[in-house]
Amino acid sequence: MTREWTRKDLLGLEELSSEELLLLLEQARAFKEVSLRPIKKVPALRGRTVVLFFLEPSTRTRTSFELAAKRLSADILSIQAGSSSLSKGETLQDTIRNIEAMKVDIVVIRHAMSGAPRLVARTAVSSIVNAGDGSHEHPTQGLVDLYTIWEKKERIAGLNVTIVGDIAHSRVARSNLWGLTKLGAHVTLCGPPTLMPAGIEQFGVKVTYNLREAMRDADILMLLRLQLERQTQNLLPSIREYAKLFGIDREKLAWGKPDLLIMHPGPVNRGIELAPEVADGPQSLIYDQVTNGVAVRMAVLYLVSGGRQIRKARPAPSPTQPVGV
Amino acid sequence: MTREWTRKDLLGLEELSSEELLLLLEQARAFKEVSLRPIKKVPALRGRTVVLFFLEPSTRTRTSFELAAKRLSADILSIQAGSSSLSKGETLQDTIRNIEAMKVDIVVIRHAMSGAPRLVARTAVSSIVNAGDGSHEHPTQGLVDLYTIWEKKERIAGLNVTIVGDIAHSRVARSNLWGLTKLGAHVTLCGPPTLMPAGIEQFGVKVTYNLREAMRDADILMLLRLQLERQTQNLLPSIREYAKLFGIDREKLAWGKPDLLIMHPGPVNRGIELAPEVADGPQSLIYDQVTNGVAVRMAVLYLVSGGRQIRKARPAPSPTQPVGV
Amino acid sequence: MTREWTRKDLLGLEELSSEELLLLLEQARAFKEVSLRPIKKVPALRGRTVVLFFLEPSTRTRTSFELAAKRLSADILSIQAGSSSLSKGETLQDTIRNIEAMKVDIVVIRHAMSGAPRLVARTAVSSIVNAGDGSHEHPTQGLVDLYTIWEKKERIAGLNVTIVGDIAHSRVARSNLWGLTKLGAHVTLCGPPTLMPAGIEQFGVKVTYNLREAMRDADILMLLRLQLERQTQNLLPSIREYAKLFGIDREKLAWGKPDLLIMHPGPVNRGIELAPEVADGPQSLIYDQVTNGVAVRMAVLYLVSGGRQIRKARPAPSPTQPVGV
Repeated sequence: MTREWTRKDLLGLEELSSEELLLLLEQARAFKEVSLRPIKKVPALRGRTVVLFFLEPSTRTRTSFELAAKRLSADILSIQAGSSSLSKGETLQDTIRNIEAMKVDIVVIRHAMSGAPRLVARTAVSSIVNAGDGSHEHPTQGLVDLYTIWEKKERIAGLNVTIVGDIAHSRVARSNLWGLTKLGAHVTLCGPPTLMPAGIEQFGVKVTYNLREAMRDADILMLLRLQLERQTQNLLPSIREYAKLFGIDREKLAWGKPDLLIMHPGPVNRGIELAPEVADGPQSLIYDQVTNGVAVRMAVLYLVSGGRQIRKARPAPSPTQPVGV
Repeated sequence: MTREWTRKDLLGLEELSSEELLLLLEQARAFKEVSLRPIKKVPALRGRTVVLFFLEPSTRTRTSFELAAKRLSADILSIQAGSSSLSKGETLQDTIRNIEAMKVDIVVIRHAMSGAPRLVARTAVSSIVNAGDGSHEHPTQGLVDLYTIWEKKERIAGLNVTIVGDIAHSRVARSNLWGLTKLGAHVTLCGPPTLMPAGIEQFGVKVTYNLREAMRDADILMLLRLQLERQTQNLLPSIREYAKLFGIDREKLAWGKPDLLIMHPGPVNRGIELAPEVADGPQSLIYDQVTNGVAVRMAVLYLVSGGRQIRKARPAPSPTQPVGV
Repeated sequence: MTREWTRKDLLGLEELSSEELLLLLEQARAFKEVSLRPIKKVPALRGRTVVLFFLEPSTRTRTSFELAAKRLSADILSIQAGSSSLSKGETLQDTIRNIEAMKVDIVVIRHAMSGAPRLVARTAVSSIVNAGDGSHEHPTQGLVDLYTIWEKKERIAGLNVTIVGDIAHSRVARSNLWGLTKLGAHVTLCGPPTLMPAGIEQFGVKVTYNLREAMRDADILMLLRLQLERQTQNLLPSIREYAKLFGIDREKLAWGKPDLLIMHPGPVNRGIELAPEVADGPQSLIYDQVTNGVAVRMAVLYLVSGGRQIRKARPAPSPTQPVGV
């Protein structure tokens, strides 16, 4: 078992070992302490350049990464959808190669297309961090959720974790599923049949369409954000029906164990996934998740940056060195 | 008389004592010196996080706060209207709670609704600084104006200050009115009757609709920016009429004392409130106001940050700590 | 021959001496080394304020300047088209005077109007850097290109440099033309007659409309970006025709010397000016140009900042100091 981080990139939780996951969580714990000091800053990435390359709108994830990079003392370039040269007919890989030519260290990328970060990482010299790609993965959110559970329950193995909502389209669910099962949690998925991917049981999870059953033994109840446009796609009878069947109010909360903890990646559709009194109640961890987001992303930026150091000896593709010069 | 700043927030000048106002002005003087050095930076807020949360468009005030925070070495997050999750149906307080969960120190907020910063401050753990709320207050602009007068005249008490324009809708006028009267200036308000709030005399100010009379004994003539949409609201006969009656050109300038000083919070509608030759003339302080804006905002960020330290022992509302964990 | 930089501003390459050009290139070489270190940051401009004032959309040049300023440890204010108070009826000079009142050190300006930076520099106290003005000059891009040639060929004097494309409207061509001829290169211009300015030969360059002839002795082939709207302006028969006559693919590349180097200021219209296999091929310097962009802009910001120090004794216009105060 290696206790060193050797990956250049963070593309998903699917390919990580449980040792790597634990290494990330421990590193996050160290940075969480930094977040609670009056001076919330360390010089770890001073003089490194982190690019926030967000091709889908995002406030929370981008802001969390931005603060993480600032608290590591990195220099930051923020390039957002529309402003980039992509609109001038460049391919994604051309754009990344241009960004990399400025000698950047890490590119944090959000993209509507599943697999885009992996495609980019194949040729990139800098570290690529996936900040959400299509319905594939959102690995830092998965790590935030793992960290928050670990912090509160002091373990993950053996816990019963129920994930409720639009499993089929959720990159958050997918990253959690990989992370939780690798670390030994028992995962139950629950939601309307139209939003449940076929054959998901083969990944070692239980599936149920009945919320009361899904909650019975749960230690953690994780609600996913409902994309309200699912209704117009005829995947839901109505938002009201969804809230009635799967939304957690005080009454349904009582179906769970008394120490059941509630999580949501945010932003919450209040009154749909969670009633306000549950979102703001004593069993809710939703603001802990936001707090931990910064620490976890500091850990990711810090480790991949070191990983890049370790791997810098590999023969990098160097298409820009002209022959004979 | 306390000589220490103890407030967590800066919400308006109405609630400040004259001692607190003087403390702010003295602190601003110290930072003004910093602005004039080649290296315009101090480490006072290193490792602290300042959020610029502007829900109304603003270039000047936001830029001034941004530079102030940078020159104090703070980390900055800028969240602007439209980009925030507010559009996804969160309330203002939900959004602030999410921002605070990232362990920020100061939230500078501009909002179209009078009272929004006070509402937020009631539950916020971080320091809230009002950067303009509806037609209520714009306390840092009021402080900039007080500082600029103090710097040029070496006193405020006993000076005759005339404020001209749309008094009824101006948060700048309101903050100045509180600050100037607390520090002993004699304030005269002047403008069209439709833009003068009823009963304003009870706050210890004189009201006149005649500019020549308002200027007669004035040491300071402060012009307010005319919101050009007032005309379509039928509060003004015409912009041209307004400029003719209340705009200061070289001819009307001669109505005042030879050492009369001219102020304007900017941006100037040149040819309406001020003729270009007056705006750029030797009696104008409009660029001094811009310069002082950065120093005054450095003072505000610095003092509320210390105020937060002092008050950190109070039992902060802690809705995010689950019971029994 | 002076070996010190004494200019406050960088407005164009036209007015620079060959000594000044070489001084810039040598300074850029020192900063290029910094870009290749793990810690890509020097404290040279710590506590200085650099304003990026871009009134035309730009990702590449703005990003390159932003990174340059960050790697020099400067504080940065970014003010972009639309967000500025210009829309509220201020003139450009009013806006600049307001920006300067915040005690900034350098204003990097991009403007659609040829000559705008020079107009601004006439009254500005801070250093003005032209980041592209109309079809006049783009001096930092010109310097990037000079530096890249110098780095690869170890000289500029005596080289044959061919510039291909829309010479008439290209500020990049104009800055290159000045820089290259001052440093002793032999410049040939090539493109459709409709896009070639009349009488350009008097500047000591050769003109040809035949690409094969233009390439025969070239050491460097510099392709300009084709503005695709030229076609709708009836300056081009068709984009396809342009690409056929002037676009460089593998076949046309063989017309040149084996060690011919290919340059393009970016972003490349792939398949028009350059076939992808040429853009990414061993003779292409296009990513070197991007890398060098940061180092060259660091050199410019550093030198003009020093130039400002040197010249700070001059009697600066000071319209904001009221008489008799």
